Amino acid sequence: MRSVVMHAPGDVRVEQLEAPKILAPTDAVIRLSATCVCGSDLWPYRGIEPVKNPVRMGHEYVGVVEEVGSEVTSVRPGQFVVGSFATSDGTCEICRSGYPSSCVHREFMSGAQADLARVPNADGTLVPTPGMPDADLLPDLLAASDVLGTGWFGAVAAQAGPGKTVTVVGDGAVGLLAVLAAKQLGAERIIAMSRHEQRQKLALDFGATDIVTERGDAGVERIKELTAGLGAHSVVEAVGTQESMLQAVRSTRPGGHVGFVGVNHDVALDGTELFFSQVHLHGGPAPVRAYLPRLIELIWRGEINPGRVFDLQLPLDQAAEAYRAMDERRAVKALLRV
Amino acid sequence: MRSVVMHAPGDVRVEQLEAPKILAPTDAVIRLSATCVCGSDLWPYRGIEPVKNPVRMGHEYVGVVEEVGSEVTSVRPGQFVVGSFATSDGTCEICRSGYPSSCVHREFMSGAQADLARVPNADGTLVPTPGMPDADLLPDLLAASDVLGTGWFGAVAAQAGPGKTVTVVGDGAVGLLAVLAAKQLGAERIIAMSRHEQRQKLALDFGATDIVTERGDAGVERIKELTAGLGAHSVVEAVGTQESMLQAVRSTRPGGHVGFVGVNHDVALDGTELFFSQVHLHGGPAPVRAYLPRLIELIWRGEINPGRVFDLQLPLDQAAEAYRAMDERRAVKALLRV
Repeated sequence: MRSVVMHAPGDVRVEQLEAPKILAPTDAVIRLSATCVCGSDLWPYRGIEPVKNPVRMGHEYVGVVEEVGSEVTSVRPGQFVVGSFATSDGTCEICRSGYPSSCVHREFMSGAQADLARVPNADGTLVPTPGMPDADLLPDLLAASDVLGTGWFGAVAAQAGPGKTVTVVGDGAVGLLAVLAAKQLGAERIIAMSRHEQRQKLALDFGATDIVTERGDAGVERIKELTAGLGAHSVVEAVGTQESMLQAVRSTRPGGHVGFVGVNHDVALDGTELFFSQVHLHGGPAPVRAYLPRLIELIWRGEINPGRVFDLQLPLDQAAEAYRAMDERRAVKALLRV
Repeated sequence: MRSVVMHAPGDVRVEQLEAPKILAPTDAVIRLSATCVCGSDLWPYRGIEPVKNPVRMGHEYVGVVEEVGSEVTSVRPGQFVVGSFATSDGTCEICRSGYPSSCVHREFMSGAQADLARVPNADGTLVPTPGMPDADLLPDLLAASDVLGTGWFGAVAAQAGPGKTVTVVGDGAVGLLAVLAAKQLGAERIIAMSRHEQRQKLALDFGATDIVTERGDAGVERIKELTAGLGAHSVVEAVGTQESMLQAVRSTRPGGHVGFVGVNHDVALDGTELFFSQVHLHGGPAPVRAYLPRLIELIWRGEINPGRVFDLQLPLDQAAEAYRAMDERRAVKALLRV
């Protein structure tokens, strides 16, 4: 079967590899219908994270169950399923408290940019859709497996809701879908920080009420101006850099909430500033699995179209071009048809 | 009148100064009944914070209203009052959201280690007691003006409550009163981290169910052992150093809550660690004023005795000895009788 393998920064190839097998009785193997390239895949692609050995890429996936291990009871071959990038047993105390992405048996998915992929912890990870989806639903369902769920967590962690002014720092797929999530959660005002015309347009379509093009201190100043000098109630951080984290904390009013979902790289938060900012800070790998039933329902009913973040669709064989397009910011997010 | 003045690290004197006056129509002047030395007063005393000019010390206070400005309506001369170290107007949006310690008109109190003190924002800051308190209630009411309210905020920020295992890092007055607060808030299990016998005893009296003497990584390991490997639901950080902040974050389970109320000094939190820890982090200068009515009621009814943290009582004239005793850790907290 085909699999996308990263050999070194900038070096992504589609190779023929042996098909994955059931290794544990709790595993499933699924045949991918669609997969995609994640913003976090760009960290090693750009050499910011090391690539020591060739690695099978991909952790976002939708597809049809091909085979299940002997202990799997909640999904069966032939079902169309959506899963999370973080697998979870669904039964441990951390899962039950709403944090499956920190499950005590968590294994992060890999190798989903392929024809077939093995999914550990299948029972607690995979959610079957109500039926076999039409092709036009695939991008939406695929988005649910990571970027939508991550943006959703950002909005939940920032306590977006009725009466709240929400600011979103970052206009990648996650940031844009945090706008969509804030809208679904009932936020009164949603300020998207973006200087890219196309992304601004999508943010407005997803529910943004205001666009702020300034960044850093000027961006913070602008948010303060828009919020009677106080800062936003809720700020979603969807980048993961020092600048964006500070921008998020400083854009939040005392007692407000920062939801940070950009995977942090070289970020150091000053304790004194955090102390006197008096914000709530919460984030991390999104507990996507906890949201999947609701997200799938919203998609199935056609109430949300998160798949619009895929502004490039290519066959799996052209994965290298998908990476290049995202690296060069020619595409927000690239879907790979399998 | 007498006032405690710090001239340089280690140099604290009681001096005769001019009595404070009403400067703004929203001010009150109170005659102190008791005041005390704060752990945070030790930062400049130890030279960790600079002392550029001689400074009037003291921000914890209870006493009788002497005079009020023309716009003050909620307290009148002759009333016994308790206030917060952070003054607040009580009407701004931040106050109304429960964060008076970040009031847009906040002024931090100073000069309360004295016979008389000026309190800005009197209407939004001072809370009268139901009557003139007996002398034996003074330590309890004085504790409410800072250390009790701060420990309480730590426990609230850590979401201490029924069914929760709460860990308290720091066995100073604030940490000990965070134990008391966690108990009042209904926590199931309260683990106090302390290696001082006398403080351990007080922690147990205040409601601690377990004592952990280990610190740093060993302390984290011990908390994990006591919580099925997961970490505590709620952790209060009441020190403010890099080591104690890390100990707090690492002792908390994914999805759990860290309430940090130790004034941070030279703390830098690694974003990646915070991200993957998946904890909630909230803290800062405690919104004591928001809790005062409840705290005064609990004290008035004799349900809590937070004043037990004062293990040294001296007349105001001996303020220098009070500072020395706390600096040398001979006293948890020193009350000054005025």
